[in-house]
Amino acid sequence: MINTLVEKIQKTNAPIVVGLDPMLKYIPEQIRTAAFAEYGETLKGAAEAVWQFNKGIVDAVADLIPAVKPQIAMYEQFGVEGLIAYQKTVDYCKEKGLVVIGDVKRGDIGSTSEAYAVGHLGKVQVGENRIPAFGEDFATVNPYLGSDGVKPFLKVCKEEKKGIFVLVKTSNPSSGEFQDRLIDGKPLYEWVGEKVVEWGEEVMGDSYSYVGAVFGATYPEMVPVMRKLMPKTYFLVPGYGAQGAKGADLVDFFNPDGLGAIVNSSRGIIAAWKQEKYAQFGPQCYADASRQAVKDMIEDISGAVNAAMTGKRA
Amino acid sequence: MINTLVEKIQKTNAPIVVGLDPMLKYIPEQIRTAAFAEYGETLKGAAEAVWQFNKGIVDAVADLIPAVKPQIAMYEQFGVEGLIAYQKTVDYCKEKGLVVIGDVKRGDIGSTSEAYAVGHLGKVQVGENRIPAFGEDFATVNPYLGSDGVKPFLKVCKEEKKGIFVLVKTSNPSSGEFQDRLIDGKPLYEWVGEKVVEWGEEVMGDSYSYVGAVFGATYPEMVPVMRKLMPKTYFLVPGYGAQGAKGADLVDFFNPDGLGAIVNSSRGIIAAWKQEKYAQFGPQCYADASRQAVKDMIEDISGAVNAAMTGKRA
Repeated sequence: MINTLVEKIQKTNAPIVVGLDPMLKYIPEQIRTAAFAEYGETLKGAAEAVWQFNKGIVDAVADLIPAVKPQIAMYEQFGVEGLIAYQKTVDYCKEKGLVVIGDVKRGDIGSTSEAYAVGHLGKVQVGENRIPAFGEDFATVNPYLGSDGVKPFLKVCKEEKKGIFVLVKTSNPSSGEFQDRLIDGKPLYEWVGEKVVEWGEEVMGDSYSYVGAVFGATYPEMVPVMRKLMPKTYFLVPGYGAQGAKGADLVDFFNPDGLGAIVNSSRGIIAAWKQEKYAQFGPQCYADASRQAVKDMIEDISGAVNAAMTGKRA
Repeated sequence: MINTLVEKIQKTNAPIVVGLDPMLKYIPEQIRTAAFAEYGETLKGAAEAVWQFNKGIVDAVADLIPAVKPQIAMYEQFGVEGLIAYQKTVDYCKEKGLVVIGDVKRGDIGSTSEAYAVGHLGKVQVGENRIPAFGEDFATVNPYLGSDGVKPFLKVCKEEKKGIFVLVKTSNPSSGEFQDRLIDGKPLYEWVGEKVVEWGEEVMGDSYSYVGAVFGATYPEMVPVMRKLMPKTYFLVPGYGAQGAKGADLVDFFNPDGLGAIVNSSRGIIAAWKQEKYAQFGPQCYADASRQAVKDMIEDISGAVNAAMTGKRA
């Protein structure tokens, strides 16, 4: 799947992923009203609004991008009904040819981690049948429990040719509380990064490993060291746009081949219609606002990366 | 909810929690056959088997114990159908008067962590309504993202009088890869433990905080220091039984008041009928085997704790 992701990034010239993290307040009133009219102000009504909203955005942007990253928490807050909307979203994006990165941040031990791996990336055995459940292409994984938590994912990744992104350095302000603490002179996130490389060696794709790393755009000063330490690791980079980072801040995430990173934007794309910059689209054309925001993001990031790579080659 | 948990532990004299982590191989054939006959060898058939299996165990042990801990991964592996079985299990256990600890190990940042907190412990706003989704009483939380990931849970815990258990030191063999690494002379898990105390001060119950800690029974040598460092923190202790720890290994988890810890057993209880020790019950009476295993566990743990506390007071 990492090979597919790389191909799609090259084909679209868009090293970006759209985060499908719908909050009800991002959803234009006409969609909410229609969903509540059908199912009431219920969990089912909320889930329907989320699904219709997502569908509009996916239809508007699918040809421009390689991948989407639905954040499962935003669906899980509506319970089972929300997870039905999550499943519909995953299925629909795959039908549209998009790579789906399930931002699930799961992580447990042994047979429990295996259950997460199977449920999200693999197939679960039921009697004589092996059945896929959520069926994302990639999942994000929390490393706090160590190798026991990650290895069951590697097994499933190998079988299914799927991938994971392990949290190394997250984009939030307090990520440093534990992740930046020095252990034998190196921050914890670097130790985690080294493990990611080690885990990744077991499951190599053509040019990058099936095991990627989440590394926040909000800490660009830490990137050059990590990029060198992890040359075959794809970085999934949150923190662009609404969280503050710009294209020019991100060039160090990329390898000289112009690959190696995929930058996420969630709010900046899906709630673009609420920004002054895209206000002319209005709530009816919220999906067109998202399309324009995707184009602007591609220009910002690909522009900066191409300029930097040309500079390096010159 | 921590007050309720403490009361129930005192009333049952059972500082234990039954982990409802069903795997299909633990489920007796008559239950699987009936479920597959109704729904086929499908995700729905698997979920039905899980739910019927759980119901039998809960009916058999509910009067003996204060709490259950369903491990959501074991349901999530069957996708949405599995999560419907999770929801039924949570609801049923609450009807039976049990405290429900959702072993979800969630953790993200900001509004995302808030969505998890709301979905599992709180109420989500949909139009004019505030609606509970999964509705567990406690949830387990991963600390790798720092305070940003935990504080949204504290807010919901305060509003709803619910609680969390933060992973401090997990029971698995590789938990030390990151958790034991020394930072300024102290292991990472101790730094996390100190944060747990700090977070817990914001949400105190009568004698213990709403913020507890997960600390594996398999590392008893580390416990006395942590018990002293975290006197108002309830410990949720995995690793008993199938993972190797015995009652006598656990006495240091308890405070001199005989409280402060609740020990989990999953496989050792729910799959008791597969052990030689309980083989006389047979698969038809699997729930009676679980009941006997609960009684034996209570005797082992309460016996060891009572003896130790009597010894300390003498």
